[in-house]
Amino acid sequence: MMTVAEYIFDFLNKKGISTVYMVSGSSAMWLTDALYRNENLKAICCQHEQVCTMAADVYGRTKGIPGAALVTIGPGATNAITGVAGAWLDSSPMFVVSGQTNSKILAYQKASGIRQKGTQSLVLGDMVSGITKYFAEIMDPADTRYHMERAYYEAMSGRKGPVWIDVPVDIQNRKLPDEMNGFTPSSVEIPIIQWKEIRSFFERAKRPLILAGYGVISAGAEEELLFFAEKYSVPVVTSRNGIGVIPSDNPLFIGRPGSYGDRASHFAVQECDLLLILGSRLAQSTTGYYPDHLAPNAKKVMVDIDEKELRKGDVPVDLSIQYDLKKFLVELNIKSETWDISTHSAWVAHCRDNKMKYPTVLSEYEKEEGINSYFFTKKLSELTPDHTTVVVDTGSVCNIVSQSWELKKNQKYIISGGLSCMGFWASSIGAASFGNVIALSGDGATQMNIQEFATLAYYHLSIKLFVYNNKGYMLIRHNQHNYMQDRFLGVGPDSGVPSIDFCAVAKAYGLPCVRITEKEEIEDKVKKVFAIEGPVVCEVMVQEFGTIAPRIASRVMPDGSLKAAEFDDLWPFLDKGNM
Amino acid sequence: MMTVAEYIFDFLNKKGISTVYMVSGSSAMWLTDALYRNENLKAICCQHEQVCTMAADVYGRTKGIPGAALVTIGPGATNAITGVAGAWLDSSPMFVVSGQTNSKILAYQKASGIRQKGTQSLVLGDMVSGITKYFAEIMDPADTRYHMERAYYEAMSGRKGPVWIDVPVDIQNRKLPDEMNGFTPSSVEIPIIQWKEIRSFFERAKRPLILAGYGVISAGAEEELLFFAEKYSVPVVTSRNGIGVIPSDNPLFIGRPGSYGDRASHFAVQECDLLLILGSRLAQSTTGYYPDHLAPNAKKVMVDIDEKELRKGDVPVDLSIQYDLKKFLVELNIKSETWDISTHSAWVAHCRDNKMKYPTVLSEYEKEEGINSYFFTKKLSELTPDHTTVVVDTGSVCNIVSQSWELKKNQKYIISGGLSCMGFWASSIGAASFGNVIALSGDGATQMNIQEFATLAYYHLSIKLFVYNNKGYMLIRHNQHNYMQDRFLGVGPDSGVPSIDFCAVAKAYGLPCVRITEKEEIEDKVKKVFAIEGPVVCEVMVQEFGTIAPRIASRVMPDGSLKAAEFDDLWPFLDKGNM
Repeated sequence: MMTVAEYIFDFLNKKGISTVYMVSGSSAMWLTDALYRNENLKAICCQHEQVCTMAADVYGRTKGIPGAALVTIGPGATNAITGVAGAWLDSSPMFVVSGQTNSKILAYQKASGIRQKGTQSLVLGDMVSGITKYFAEIMDPADTRYHMERAYYEAMSGRKGPVWIDVPVDIQNRKLPDEMNGFTPSSVEIPIIQWKEIRSFFERAKRPLILAGYGVISAGAEEELLFFAEKYSVPVVTSRNGIGVIPSDNPLFIGRPGSYGDRASHFAVQECDLLLILGSRLAQSTTGYYPDHLAPNAKKVMVDIDEKELRKGDVPVDLSIQYDLKKFLVELNIKSETWDISTHSAWVAHCRDNKMKYPTVLSEYEKEEGINSYFFTKKLSELTPDHTTVVVDTGSVCNIVSQSWELKKNQKYIISGGLSCMGFWASSIGAASFGNVIALSGDGATQMNIQEFATLAYYHLSIKLFVYNNKGYMLIRHNQHNYMQDRFLGVGPDSGVPSIDFCAVAKAYGLPCVRITEKEEIEDKVKKVFAIEGPVVCEVMVQEFGTIAPRIASRVMPDGSLKAAEFDDLWPFLDKGNM
Repeated sequence: MMTVAEYIFDFLNKKGISTVYMVSGSSAMWLTDALYRNENLKAICCQHEQVCTMAADVYGRTKGIPGAALVTIGPGATNAITGVAGAWLDSSPMFVVSGQTNSKILAYQKASGIRQKGTQSLVLGDMVSGITKYFAEIMDPADTRYHMERAYYEAMSGRKGPVWIDVPVDIQNRKLPDEMNGFTPSSVEIPIIQWKEIRSFFERAKRPLILAGYGVISAGAEEELLFFAEKYSVPVVTSRNGIGVIPSDNPLFIGRPGSYGDRASHFAVQECDLLLILGSRLAQSTTGYYPDHLAPNAKKVMVDIDEKELRKGDVPVDLSIQYDLKKFLVELNIKSETWDISTHSAWVAHCRDNKMKYPTVLSEYEKEEGINSYFFTKKLSELTPDHTTVVVDTGSVCNIVSQSWELKKNQKYIISGGLSCMGFWASSIGAASFGNVIALSGDGATQMNIQEFATLAYYHLSIKLFVYNNKGYMLIRHNQHNYMQDRFLGVGPDSGVPSIDFCAVAKAYGLPCVRITEKEEIEDKVKKVFAIEGPVVCEVMVQEFGTIAPRIASRVMPDGSLKAAEFDDLWPFLDKGNM
């Protein structure tokens, strides 16, 4: 009979998981040994638990089943929290297994409310229940099967997310009983879809638009969406987490609306007469600050697996459907065969005209002094091979790259969406099992997980890390410039944030590094980066205070509050006659 | 009238806080600006929020008032959790201020249970309430004074600990009303001390012993304790967090009991007939695995500020007193003037004989191949100047250094006690405001916060970091050797953990580095390190698999559980005739 620890990893492996991201620790000793002895599982040791869960997040989003992380008690667990919070917000399935103190000590610690009984031990339930779909401590070996089955079910059902199983060290090595109860999920009700209304919306629509979010990717429904859009010439805009839904060269792709959006997509949203919102939570960063003004002339149909997102109601929606996106789109494609939907070529042409008229990457960027980050990104995206996972870290780089990346077919595009966590570049470790990866990061964000340079080197992972070195936190620099009259604190070398020589650090960790300082050398050097096998750091010396545009700008009001511009009135403001 | 953000930093400054450890972020924008504009406060920008709270922890323990950390929303907050958990477990006063999303968004997120409404926003209450003494969101400017006064009171009263104030971005810049309610603590009852019993215990005792923990330091009662001990010749042993209570050259200092302890202190504990337990929680790592066998022939008096620690009852105690350690010792010194306490010179001599007979650092260590970590530590402690804060990271280094460091007068000794968190060396940033600091860390632990090399260099902090490079996690290596028949995973270069060239990394960050590879060069090179002004990394190539002894050893039983040896039967086991 297996031990608890053996069962856990056997279970995960049987679900298709092939890799576990870990940092070892004494209180996870039997778990670690069971992982070692499981011949089908590969362990990738990270340098910090934060990256175990970030890597598992990206593994989960890439493979569609949970990414797995093994961490130890106390600080191992708390270090892992940021990555779990990220997975929670971005609907990423994840399975965290942690070592814990002896079960008796844990039970006393929980019951008494004492700060600590053992050493390193923390009661995790309260800390992580709000950012996990299921958390359980295995206090009795006989409960192992139930907790594992339940946790897996929760991670994968409905809106996906992380789960966490905490295993006291004395339980890990215990033999399982011959029989264990399993978990049986209650049946899920299939919603009644108002197809008649949807049909009438589509048959009447002259300017339909699809706004696609990560829900489409999570459900694996990209093909069904594109089939429908292409059949009826429905243009598509994407939220940031939904960028991967549609390649940029698809004629129906109009843009990516948001606080740092683009004019064509914002005009499309405001002009459409039917907005099909698919798997997007309509975050403020997507809809701007006046959601009730969004798509004012459109019927709005919102499909989402999470009832809470449908209930939010910031954007008044005509029809809310709580349903799996894939099932919805499959049924839509079948039902619509008999509908009388015209194609909308003129509308698509209009949207595309706007896209041509208002490009995000302006031609003058190339002529500016220093390397403009948009210009660099455009070049990089042209030179990046197909079949690559593009992982983008947080900060100005995320805004710039999400606005300007030209996504190719068979490229995945992954960001830290809801949490917007600095240091996310290192989550690229979780994509490296599936092929080539490029990670794009700012210098501030790179620093937050720079210890992982060691992991890249050790496992010779095929990750090309492009560090946009703008000497500090450029987004905050803008913020303090715009609202604090240049009272700079914590933004750059003059205000507390050192300038780092990333090539020197990379070399210290045994990684090759290429530095780009002149725009004339971009193409040659990027090609050089891609020509090197294995990991490479490419440090790009970009403008320190480059413009980030277009964007929704805000002004400080007399009472100290900020007032934002309207959704389609992006900064730099257009001359009204020019629109 | 001040804004909320201005009031917060003005309040902290008026309480004597001089430094705030921070990482900037947009959702903390007005907080950051208020900190910038407060002329009496200095901001130290760290590279990762984890280190903001670790540094604040050490600042708090050093200065006796809260250390302050300013972090941003979401990932800024979750990154800070590990440091807060450490402060919680080690009774360290700390004040965390975080930026948060707009108050309306936060209120909706809390009420609805939606995963997220804004961007980056997480509801922190559940996540941090279990590791803080007070957590509050300022949802109304009028509540600012109450929350600040209450939080400060909680951080400093009773058993100290961290508090956390979360401030929505729209509230930060709001003007305060003319009048605000404050916080009035309820009066604390003064306990009735059974002085008669204590007197009788002391008058009868022939072999009294003091076990001192961090509570003594937290109460600032070191002098009172030493006065009493010296007056009546009472020997002293210390828990790890209590190491700073008594200099090692004090004739009454016997040792430091624990899982990685020393024979003399263990014998003293088991032989004493009166054990005065002062501000020690009697953790398993101090008492071993059979707390009911501890000091079997002794009357036991335990004084602690935390009722929960007194109630724990693992060690049967004759008299439990919930009281402030300083007040207790002041009163004890007065009361005992009229008691008939004999001095205990023979008992002290006996304890000291054991100390001489069983040194922790054996003379043969010098002759071993490679650099033995105990040998190096002894040398280093001899060469380390007085008036230095010694910060010790977790792992084998903590065991080795805590066993063998010869603490000088006016040295502080700080570890991550309860949490035992890797990467704690970087908390030394919080001690650098108060003079010279040395940090001792393993290579695995150094990696966990290596980004802070940049902070050391940027602020030119007087921190000498000694990295014991044993190529991986040596404690886990021992663990997998002892219990897993050398099935190594996640312990060193052959099993997932890369070997790092710390001098190369240090130099990449602009830090001088000294590498010690031969034992003959230890003295010269350590002197060289101390001769350099400002930060230095000293990489010491120690044995990869050195013995860690003495310690309480465990065996694996047939049912998979571990069985530990008795408290005074330390490994390597003594020949009974030799005791």
